Amino acid sequence: MRIVSGMRPTGKLHLGHYFGVIKNWLKLQEENECFFFIADWHALTNRYKDTKDLKENIRQMIIDWLACGIDPNKATLFIQSGVKQHAELALLFSMITPKSWLELNPSYKDLKFNLMYQYLKDFLLGKKIKVNQAPPPESYDEALEKATGKQKSKIFEEYLREAFHRAFYSQKGIDFEYLREVLLKFGIQRKIVEEAISNLEEGDVGKDLDTLGFLAYPVLQAADILIYKAQKVPVGEDQLPHIELTREIARRFNNLYKEVFPEPEAILTEEAKLPGIDGRKMSKSYNNAIYLSDSEDEVNQKVLQMKTDPQRVKKTDPGNPDVCIVYDYHKIFTKDEELLKEIDTKCRNAEIGCVDCKKILAENINKFLQPIREKRKEIEANLQEYEKIFIDGTLKCRKLAEETMKEARDAMNLYDIEE
Amino acid sequence: MRIVSGMRPTGKLHLGHYFGVIKNWLKLQEENECFFFIADWHALTNRYKDTKDLKENIRQMIIDWLACGIDPNKATLFIQSGVKQHAELALLFSMITPKSWLELNPSYKDLKFNLMYQYLKDFLLGKKIKVNQAPPPESYDEALEKATGKQKSKIFEEYLREAFHRAFYSQKGIDFEYLREVLLKFGIQRKIVEEAISNLEEGDVGKDLDTLGFLAYPVLQAADILIYKAQKVPVGEDQLPHIELTREIARRFNNLYKEVFPEPEAILTEEAKLPGIDGRKMSKSYNNAIYLSDSEDEVNQKVLQMKTDPQRVKKTDPGNPDVCIVYDYHKIFTKDEELLKEIDTKCRNAEIGCVDCKKILAENINKFLQPIREKRKEIEANLQEYEKIFIDGTLKCRKLAEETMKEARDAMNLYDIEE
Repeated sequence: MRIVSGMRPTGKLHLGHYFGVIKNWLKLQEENECFFFIADWHALTNRYKDTKDLKENIRQMIIDWLACGIDPNKATLFIQSGVKQHAELALLFSMITPKSWLELNPSYKDLKFNLMYQYLKDFLLGKKIKVNQAPPPESYDEALEKATGKQKSKIFEEYLREAFHRAFYSQKGIDFEYLREVLLKFGIQRKIVEEAISNLEEGDVGKDLDTLGFLAYPVLQAADILIYKAQKVPVGEDQLPHIELTREIARRFNNLYKEVFPEPEAILTEEAKLPGIDGRKMSKSYNNAIYLSDSEDEVNQKVLQMKTDPQRVKKTDPGNPDVCIVYDYHKIFTKDEELLKEIDTKCRNAEIGCVDCKKILAENINKFLQPIREKRKEIEANLQEYEKIFIDGTLKCRKLAEETMKEARDAMNLYDIEE
Repeated sequence: MRIVSGMRPTGKLHLGHYFGVIKNWLKLQEENECFFFIADWHALTNRYKDTKDLKENIRQMIIDWLACGIDPNKATLFIQSGVKQHAELALLFSMITPKSWLELNPSYKDLKFNLMYQYLKDFLLGKKIKVNQAPPPESYDEALEKATGKQKSKIFEEYLREAFHRAFYSQKGIDFEYLREVLLKFGIQRKIVEEAISNLEEGDVGKDLDTLGFLAYPVLQAADILIYKAQKVPVGEDQLPHIELTREIARRFNNLYKEVFPEPEAILTEEAKLPGIDGRKMSKSYNNAIYLSDSEDEVNQKVLQMKTDPQRVKKTDPGNPDVCIVYDYHKIFTKDEELLKEIDTKCRNAEIGCVDCKKILAENINKFLQPIREKRKEIEANLQEYEKIFIDGTLKCRKLAEETMKEARDAMNLYDIEE
């Protein structure tokens, strides 16, 4: 089975990446013909303004992948931007892809929503509006009655978001009429309401992020996949619409010109949701991640900062592992089943303190990371040699991609000029 | 001065192309470093559905250009799709180009207008609406009063177009409120009006033509120009917004990353508006064109069909060369100043008939076309050899384009993997 999958080089990999993606790839590479690529062009879709770390991020990704056991003898590893044919095929696909297919793409709509909501919120809060003057919508009034000061504006924000969500995802585009109604109900001056809405209507909001590249990236993704005629693509649930689009583009091309592209199928990968040390999604931007490259000390410190059962205040209080992040981690990193059970029981009976429990966890995470760390060091010391793996992979992919392009050009009746 | 210009290969060249573009290129190639390219990717932006003639159209363009005297010793001639770097640069530019820049592009707006208007018209006419029941807007009522039957629906169409134009190009997006008002004034049933408007609002109209490629083509055009660091670009007035966009993209790239691209300037080319034989714009789709490849007989016949002064019915009526298409042509093809004056005088005095006048013209057009025809034959007989000129040009451009791409990749901190 031919499988294609990529990752955006946005920084060093953390445990979330490992259990969300890499672990799955390690399995896939054993029994399939895998193509794993560093999606550096995709990294530009939302981070085009500051690219100074891009090359370093790619290097870190090379180190992390190889250190984790992604194996160039089993999978083809390459850098997307090194295979120009992806750009060529994306351009050809852009010609046959109705813009509406992309505008209906959920992640595109979500971006628009976030940009516009952020603008609306900032605009209204910037006007220092009072929000307790008038009858607000739904149960807002009750909530507001009980609230004071800071709470009030928090409640306002919540309800504003809800109202905007309803206006934004209405059947026929954005329902500004509804939004206007709600804002007036909040007791906001009509003048301010009209100004906010007219700014939103003009569509200038967030235009810096709302680029052509952002709109078009699912088409580039379709090219990434179809250029290797992949049969399967491992994705998370939120990526399913993109695979559907890829299939639609393949169908449309085949129907218009000639059967060139097979329709790939999604392999839904279970998301092992390893939370960050604060309980939120693990992410660089939340500063709550444990990196594959973290030192023993860094891991120890981060684990010590981990949130535990909030009900357990003193060591003598019984704890509940079911709501404890530390225990979530134990389930992954503490392989000894008996020890795992013991921790559970001892926690519930207040026989083990959080600090001791965390020490065991930190040790086990370090045990897991130790071989990766060592491999990382070895790779870093001979980086050029390992980079060459990706360069060779890229050159190999150029040839493969060019073969598909020959078929695609021929199907569309384009000239084909060889080197 | 480095100059870049391209033409879409949409079929054989006609006299309109010659006097609108080629003649200008012949001048430019004498004193500049010119890059002329066959814009085959651009031909896909609005004609992607049927590409079976694409290769043949490219061949005809090669023949026509060379037969006209476009000189590979003076200019670099190439085929756009043969230089993948254009696609790569367009992709990079797409990341930094706000979508709103493109949506505000006049030719994009015009396409949307035409698609939506066509839909509205077809929808309303399909409903067999009666349009003479109610007070229509502006001077429509007067016009309608005088009209009957067929004329009525023609007048309706005219006014509908005007009304939709006003609604479409209103300050804040499409003013459906105004459109609704006007349609009701026409006496169209409210139910039909609401259905038409709600279909327009849903944005599904003409989505087949409203592709990503169509939205994005000015970005590809920017890449075509900037990849050769052109200083000047010859354009017609309607293309000025595209050059402005190219300059904006260059500025944005330079500001974000590093000074790589010079801002090209437009050379406004006077449009020599040689009309088609029916007086409308010369165009393949109107079936009113004289082709560079037309035989003597074809030219003779087409000239005989040309529209003349509509007031001159009989040979004995005096004619008016100022409103005669044949005379417009004489001014270009009849080089003999005295003969030109003589025709003018004789026409005004009914001393020469239209057929005789046309014979002189046909002879002069044939005189003009004869060397082009001969050259065409020679090229067609050795086509491969002449195609090679474009292949060599393409290979040369790859090298040049790659040099610019190296700078662009470096500026954005992308990896650069050599062959």
